[in-house]
Amino acid sequence: MAVYTEVSDAELEGFLSGYSLGRPLSFKGVAEGVENSNYVLETETGRYILTLYERRVKAADLPYFLGLMEHLAEAGFPSARPVADHAGRTLGELAGRPAAIVAFLSGLSVKRPGVGHCREAGEGLAWLHQAGAGFAPRRENDLGQGAWVAMFETLAPRAEALKPGLAAQIGGDVAAIAAAWPRGLPQGVVHADWFPDNVFFRDGRFVGAIDFYFAANDQLAYDLGVALNAWCFEPDGSFNVTAGRALVEGYERRRKLTQAEKAALPALARGAALRFFLTRLADWRDERQGALVRPKDPLEYERKLAVHRAGLHLFEA
Amino acid sequence: MAVYTEVSDAELEGFLSGYSLGRPLSFKGVAEGVENSNYVLETETGRYILTLYERRVKAADLPYFLGLMEHLAEAGFPSARPVADHAGRTLGELAGRPAAIVAFLSGLSVKRPGVGHCREAGEGLAWLHQAGAGFAPRRENDLGQGAWVAMFETLAPRAEALKPGLAAQIGGDVAAIAAAWPRGLPQGVVHADWFPDNVFFRDGRFVGAIDFYFAANDQLAYDLGVALNAWCFEPDGSFNVTAGRALVEGYERRRKLTQAEKAALPALARGAALRFFLTRLADWRDERQGALVRPKDPLEYERKLAVHRAGLHLFEA
Repeated sequence: MAVYTEVSDAELEGFLSGYSLGRPLSFKGVAEGVENSNYVLETETGRYILTLYERRVKAADLPYFLGLMEHLAEAGFPSARPVADHAGRTLGELAGRPAAIVAFLSGLSVKRPGVGHCREAGEGLAWLHQAGAGFAPRRENDLGQGAWVAMFETLAPRAEALKPGLAAQIGGDVAAIAAAWPRGLPQGVVHADWFPDNVFFRDGRFVGAIDFYFAANDQLAYDLGVALNAWCFEPDGSFNVTAGRALVEGYERRRKLTQAEKAALPALARGAALRFFLTRLADWRDERQGALVRPKDPLEYERKLAVHRAGLHLFEA
Repeated sequence: MAVYTEVSDAELEGFLSGYSLGRPLSFKGVAEGVENSNYVLETETGRYILTLYERRVKAADLPYFLGLMEHLAEAGFPSARPVADHAGRTLGELAGRPAAIVAFLSGLSVKRPGVGHCREAGEGLAWLHQAGAGFAPRRENDLGQGAWVAMFETLAPRAEALKPGLAAQIGGDVAAIAAAWPRGLPQGVVHADWFPDNVFFRDGRFVGAIDFYFAANDQLAYDLGVALNAWCFEPDGSFNVTAGRALVEGYERRRKLTQAEKAALPALARGAALRFFLTRLADWRDERQGALVRPKDPLEYERKLAVHRAGLHLFEA
């Protein structure tokens, strides 16, 4: 996250008076992520993350996200559990923003995942997919494949401004992805943002995941597409097929992929690359800022799209 | 602080291998302050703040600051104690920056101090002054009164650009402050940045202080000048004399001021306001940034200077 909204002393005190967490002992804004304002809150009863929801997160979606986090924690998946207030609500309001408190989850995210991390991240993702089964509420993936044509139409001029000729190239990607998009794969709750910063390790083992604010109901294997892009590319833009295979292998330790899912992975990964290219393009501003948080470079995903045009060769033919 | 420098997995691991803190369990950038990059680091042995020194902090001054923090902790003052590595050093290098680990200090800073907080902050400051006695190293206050004429000469055009006529007005302040500046007051270690964000409370009581990176040897009462500006003005720019008296009264619970110190407080506070006006002006950029950290508004201190021109009336004549 980051800190977009400052919380006054009185606001914090008022908010905490609705919970049974004891008095606050420490309260520090965290410089991570780009979507919400997050604080590490220490009280007499423990450590928590207090999140104020900003910008892209729709308030109407928050009960889905928080309900999912509760469901996952109940199912034994290592994710942060939302804390209920005196009235049993996990969603409140603070400083004019929707806000929630979740238990603090320990663990380190890796910045340069190795093959072993990819295997663990794959297994953690399959665990999440299993734990999400039985979660009744539904949320359409509003950044899923159905949204990309319209997003591209709005953003084509920015793509062209970023790099001449890019609009036509991305237009080709949008059409190719639509034509190749799989239907009828196993559905469930997807995380939809399974990036290294959202996955925690200890001693190289998966120990938890955070940030369920893009979660939705979609084809499960789409999450592997997101993860292949996020975990298995080298800094120079090349795809590390060993890492990719480890990710899939780790996933299959917990949940076997169907043949149709395996066959669809290159298309899903290409689509996922398009999704992150488009949203990064929408967030991109030319100005460089001195301190984090800065927008993420859309060109990183343009390079990944170029790799996908040539095809991912994850499995032996 | 904020996060200006990212630390890679390998860099963190390498750095921690020099300490006896056990394995890292959590590592989060903190969105606070503007000078350095700070991370909350949790390891098997406890919680720490890892700081990478950026920008304004001179590497040559770091042994003074870290030595002072050790001295204060030894003297029983509640400040963060630096952690020594295997070789007994508290200062190392990480990601190309000087870096140090200090114990995590709990406590809440207040954003809108009340009169009671001012009294406590005053008492905490006097405690710091007492605890600093006997600290042998010396550091000149390079942002003290001796520096303001030269700083103003460089910054006068920016002052004028900020508000027409301001350069002449501030030039008048610089001269008036130089003429009224006290000499020969009791000397010692000053914090020089005794702002609410650097002072921690629990249940309204002073419980500790952080951020000694402007500390220096100077006239002790200068710190009260800084604090009067930082703690005792209302958001509308007016000086709350009740809060100011409470600050001084709290200070005198621990250390009585001399008559000369009391008489000098208006001049010291005016000078301190000039110091923060000048450094904020130097840091000011017109662009607004979406997220914290943003530069602090120099005009806040211009308004305080205007109050000082009319004189602070802290004590009955």
